[in-house]
Amino acid sequence: MAKNKHGGKKPEQVDDSFGSVLQVGPGFRLADLDPAATPGFSGKKKDAEKAMDAARDEIDDLQERLYAGGRDGDGPAILLVVQGMDTSGKGGVMRHVVGTVDPQGVRLHAFKAPSVEERRHPFLWRIRRELPPPGYIGVFDRSHYEDVLVVRVHDLVPPATWRRRYDQINSFERSANDRGIHLIKVMLHISSGEQKARLQERLDRPDKYWKFNPGDIDERERWDDYQQAYQAVFDKTSTEQNPWYAVPADHKWYARLAVQQLLLEELRGLDLHWPGPDFDVAEQQRRLAAT
Amino acid sequence: MAKNKHGGKKPEQVDDSFGSVLQVGPGFRLADLDPAATPGFSGKKKDAEKAMDAARDEIDDLQERLYAGGRDGDGPAILLVVQGMDTSGKGGVMRHVVGTVDPQGVRLHAFKAPSVEERRHPFLWRIRRELPPPGYIGVFDRSHYEDVLVVRVHDLVPPATWRRRYDQINSFERSANDRGIHLIKVMLHISSGEQKARLQERLDRPDKYWKFNPGDIDERERWDDYQQAYQAVFDKTSTEQNPWYAVPADHKWYARLAVQQLLLEELRGLDLHWPGPDFDVAEQQRRLAAT
Repeated sequence: MAKNKHGGKKPEQVDDSFGSVLQVGPGFRLADLDPAATPGFSGKKKDAEKAMDAARDEIDDLQERLYAGGRDGDGPAILLVVQGMDTSGKGGVMRHVVGTVDPQGVRLHAFKAPSVEERRHPFLWRIRRELPPPGYIGVFDRSHYEDVLVVRVHDLVPPATWRRRYDQINSFERSANDRGIHLIKVMLHISSGEQKARLQERLDRPDKYWKFNPGDIDERERWDDYQQAYQAVFDKTSTEQNPWYAVPADHKWYARLAVQQLLLEELRGLDLHWPGPDFDVAEQQRRLAAT
Repeated sequence: MAKNKHGGKKPEQVDDSFGSVLQVGPGFRLADLDPAATPGFSGKKKDAEKAMDAARDEIDDLQERLYAGGRDGDGPAILLVVQGMDTSGKGGVMRHVVGTVDPQGVRLHAFKAPSVEERRHPFLWRIRRELPPPGYIGVFDRSHYEDVLVVRVHDLVPPATWRRRYDQINSFERSANDRGIHLIKVMLHISSGEQKARLQERLDRPDKYWKFNPGDIDERERWDDYQQAYQAVFDKTSTEQNPWYAVPADHKWYARLAVQQLLLEELRGLDLHWPGPDFDVAEQQRRLAAT
């Protein structure tokens, strides 16, 4: 644990580390997770906002150390992978969690349906190119997991192909670890009823029309298939080294706090120090004084 | 001017638009601009912070409209170009101005010394690739202007080559305008004394060592050459269509406010509206209700 001036204090309503309560372990059933729950946090919306504000300085400090450590081309990086059904709040996490981190140290990439060129390559090709360099916090809004989610639900490749991908993903992620990349894999879990309400809002408010796509309802009709596909993702790719975190997301304020705290806990665990000078400080002070 | 719910109100200490007071017009002399001045603003640090906070909701709203308008592959984009001597506060602008904008709508690129591959191409090749798509706010931390600044000061190419570049830049920027890209070109202007103090701080504080490079002092020794090269940039590339803004930057709080307000004024000028639906709203409402 990094010992910095912030001392790693938990907000008072936080009962335990978010990592330990949200981690997907053996036997985890997505169907049993209440999307309206707030595991590990006994506060309300206002408390969550205060807790998020309170964490900002520490994240700022740790992120800058991370970035500084990457300057010479090694040192660790973080990759935050965010998955979830339409309207589950991925955009809000980008805006309200990722958006509070210094943009100079962030590499955010939103994966859309693959282009013609991307489809000519193995599915991990376009993912590998977006991995964060040392010192950066990479953020994936959707990811390689779409290749075993939408692809599986819609039979976009033969079953034998997507079945192989779970192992390929595990070994890809281990190779990312070997390069110093620490993954935080987050699934925002909403209820079907909450999704309906959020889609309804996009159809009711002219300033939200642009976020709506008739295809969202097609996907909604496959709700159960997607839940099954997510369960398979958890069963096969929540490993000890690269676990998933299942975040109840019917309360946007809880999901944002949880993702922020997962990021903070990961940063703390890196034990980040300021790099020493690679020059003679006294000599440079003399040179500067002479100008 | 966009008429939105925020009404485009100026903070009270803002005397006039920042664009009009900071714009580099004919006869402008950089040497005559006081780096400690706060043109157009009669407040102090605290007032500037309040003014920045007060502008955030409006920027949020306008940025989201800009982004929404880019969804169908056309619509305008913004490109904020930030130049300035070492320690002039480019990083602070990235962190405190760009960092308050939704990261999903921002494309930030820091240009370093060109790579071997980049040097094989014309100087604008790597710049063109980073132009923002419709709907985005592109941000350049350094830019194509380095090709008539550091390159000119250090004779990295023959004089005939860099002399041609001013016209090439003007025509490149006009072609970006034709693609809907609105440029905001900002030069952060610090005094030599302020730079000395900021470099000194990097040598005094172990948490700042990583920001220091002995080369910064080499560059500092060419201070006058750089000031001349910036003057030439203003003389030749501050056009009516793509003007420069010279921002006094000895007060970090002023420079950040000024850049934020320049961005806000540009966004207001785009007269941004929410795009209409490209689907039948009533039909989609019926479909959703049936799920």
